[in-house]
Amino acid sequence: MTAFIHPQAIVETAVIGDRTKIWAFTHVLPGVEIGANCNICDHVFIESGVKVGQGVTIKTHVSLWTGVVVEDYCFIGPNVAFVNDLYPRSHRNPELQQRYFGGEDESWYRATTRICEGASLGANATILCGVTVGYYAMVAAGAVVTHDVQPFELVAGVPARHFGWVDREGRKVEQQPRTDDR
Amino acid sequence: MTAFIHPQAIVETAVIGDRTKIWAFTHVLPGVEIGANCNICDHVFIESGVKVGQGVTIKTHVSLWTGVVVEDYCFIGPNVAFVNDLYPRSHRNPELQQRYFGGEDESWYRATTRICEGASLGANATILCGVTVGYYAMVAAGAVVTHDVQPFELVAGVPARHFGWVDREGRKVEQQPRTDDR
Amino acid sequence: MTAFIHPQAIVETAVIGDRTKIWAFTHVLPGVEIGANCNICDHVFIESGVKVGQGVTIKTHVSLWTGVVVEDYCFIGPNVAFVNDLYPRSHRNPELQQRYFGGEDESWYRATTRICEGASLGANATILCGVTVGYYAMVAAGAVVTHDVQPFELVAGVPARHFGWVDREGRKVEQQPRTDDR
Repeated sequence: MTAFIHPQAIVETAVIGDRTKIWAFTHVLPGVEIGANCNICDHVFIESGVKVGQGVTIKTHVSLWTGVVVEDYCFIGPNVAFVNDLYPRSHRNPELQQRYFGGEDESWYRATTRICEGASLGANATILCGVTVGYYAMVAAGAVVTHDVQPFELVAGVPARHFGWVDREGRKVEQQPRTDDR
Repeated sequence: MTAFIHPQAIVETAVIGDRTKIWAFTHVLPGVEIGANCNICDHVFIESGVKVGQGVTIKTHVSLWTGVVVEDYCFIGPNVAFVNDLYPRSHRNPELQQRYFGGEDESWYRATTRICEGASLGANATILCGVTVGYYAMVAAGAVVTHDVQPFELVAGVPARHFGWVDREGRKVEQQPRTDDR
Repeated sequence: MTAFIHPQAIVETAVIGDRTKIWAFTHVLPGVEIGANCNICDHVFIESGVKVGQGVTIKTHVSLWTGVVVEDYCFIGPNVAFVNDLYPRSHRNPELQQRYFGGEDESWYRATTRICEGASLGANATILCGVTVGYYAMVAAGAVVTHDVQPFELVAGVPARHFGWVDREGRKVEQQPRTDDR
């Protein structure tokens, strides 16, 4: 394995691709798979079961929860927040455990969030669970994404709304590029 | 004490309830009180004087400042930000120290923020100081809460506005549940 | 050097002013310059080339990227996110490296962001790259700043809009204070 792992990172998986860098104060749990040529910056947390493709950039203060899939070449900006619970309540409430979760500690997991190849999530964006962000889409900084984002679509705002189209380089274009143009 | 403290956490208080877990790169200052059965995830910071109830879940990249009270069974999502200063300026500006703060380093502390029993704060939400988030209320992901939130109220947006009511399980309901239904 | 550096911080520069404090799990890269009397809280990341003035307060979970300048006495709230890329894409995408970045790994750097003397950035605010936040301006919590902010201007919302004027203490005032009133 030729990955670089900062001595102050905690990496509990061995499935890390070549030339991937994992920086200080980042914590990767067992059962995570990370592809080659990624850059995982400081203060990132990646939960068990997450798969990260190759060539992905994850900036600081990001957490990836079980149920999040990040495909090749995505860019996840600083302080981007993911969600994996449609009805977030503390699972440690014994009354709700009995009435709602049926006593099963892990039953809260609800929906998969998919960030498709090449998509970018701007700084401080929030991605609700169950959403798919399409191929080379771009989510503006600070947006709150509550619905699927189309391939090459630019969305912005709270909640995130359509603002146009971008190409693979992230430049604004008049119309949606052909999604089969790979 | 049967709490679990990750070896890479820094915990400077002994007042931590049974079965509470505190994870890596989290820093709890002296003078903090944390109840039983809590889950405090990675990269959390808790300042002196904060009280956290029992059964609370605090996700990653959250800071609790002096003046914040978190009651039992609350859920604090990832990257939620609290504020404890109505007029935030750097206290290290010597001119302002003299003219405004009277030279007292701690005089900036202004108002208490209370997160009542069972309330949930969605990912990347921001809670201004002096606000009370009511019993089993729900703050949507990315919301900026500038006023009090009623018991069982759902709020969303920037600034956060009324979007309906939820029950204790977090499901939307037609009208506000009775707040004495405990 | 009389700075305080927490034993769990990683500080790779020697250019840190007297009485500055750098707290746990914070990482300062080589080539950073930090003035005197600053308070850099837990879980901060500061990239090479950044200059921070004197008397600056930086709260938790903040990253300062190459191209960000923070002048004297600024206040950077918790989870504030900066951006230094107008068209954020993963630089690790070999196709885009060839077509767009010309194969140069560092060619992505685009614009300088300047936070002028005394300005405050509220919790969870997002500052796009190339923006100047003026002398003693105030950015409300959760705002997304896409354009320059005038001296003493208060801005709020997504995207951030004009909400009035503040004085050096952060109090609302009827009209813009004279910017030469130094």
